[in-house]
Amino acid sequence: MINVTAAITVKPGQGPALEAAFAAARPDTLQEPGCLRYDLQRVRRSDDRYLVLETWASPAALKEHGSTERFADFGKALSEIVAGAPDVTVYEPVGEQVALG
Amino acid sequence: MINVTAAITVKPGQGPALEAAFAAARPDTLQEPGCLRYDLQRVRRSDDRYLVLETWASPAALKEHGSTERFADFGKALSEIVAGAPDVTVYEPVGEQVALG
Repeated sequence: MINVTAAITVKPGQGPALEAAFAAARPDTLQEPGCLRYDLQRVRRSDDRYLVLETWASPAALKEHGSTERFADFGKALSEIVAGAPDVTVYEPVGEQVALG
Repeated sequence: MINVTAAITVKPGQGPALEAAFAAARPDTLQEPGCLRYDLQRVRRSDDRYLVLETWASPAALKEHGSTERFADFGKALSEIVAGAPDVTVYEPVGEQVALG
């Protein structure tokens, strides 16, 4: 199991567009093999800074995700509304972790 | 429910000390009212960059956590081993979220 964060800053006023694009991509992404979490967060008191919290069963599942057409389509949708490339970080868990539902 | 990330960079060679201090604080922290997640991650291929993934039932639960002696003790333990103050960000969830175990 690995966790991933993708920090996204949108252009002014593009928050709702990001939220809509994410909501459209999320259900199918959660059905991808090894996808355990794909949840959007907004930085408190901000309207342009977001974080995607992702959990994948393995590095291979994450790699597979990155090669899907869905991921490419989502990237295209984002390219119109983000203020810069998402800052993606991959983590390894250290010690015990709370199970996901 | 709110998510929090705390990005921590430790001084060279202090990774194991952070991991031990976190493992010691984690069990009791998870017993705090409204604590749903308190998990340590290490940035992949790094030995000094960490992220704490936290989930709290409410902003009030998070605030209560910040006022505990345990939190103060953990802060003191960290002060010896971190390369700078943890970068803490509080988020609001956007749309559906995966349930925690």
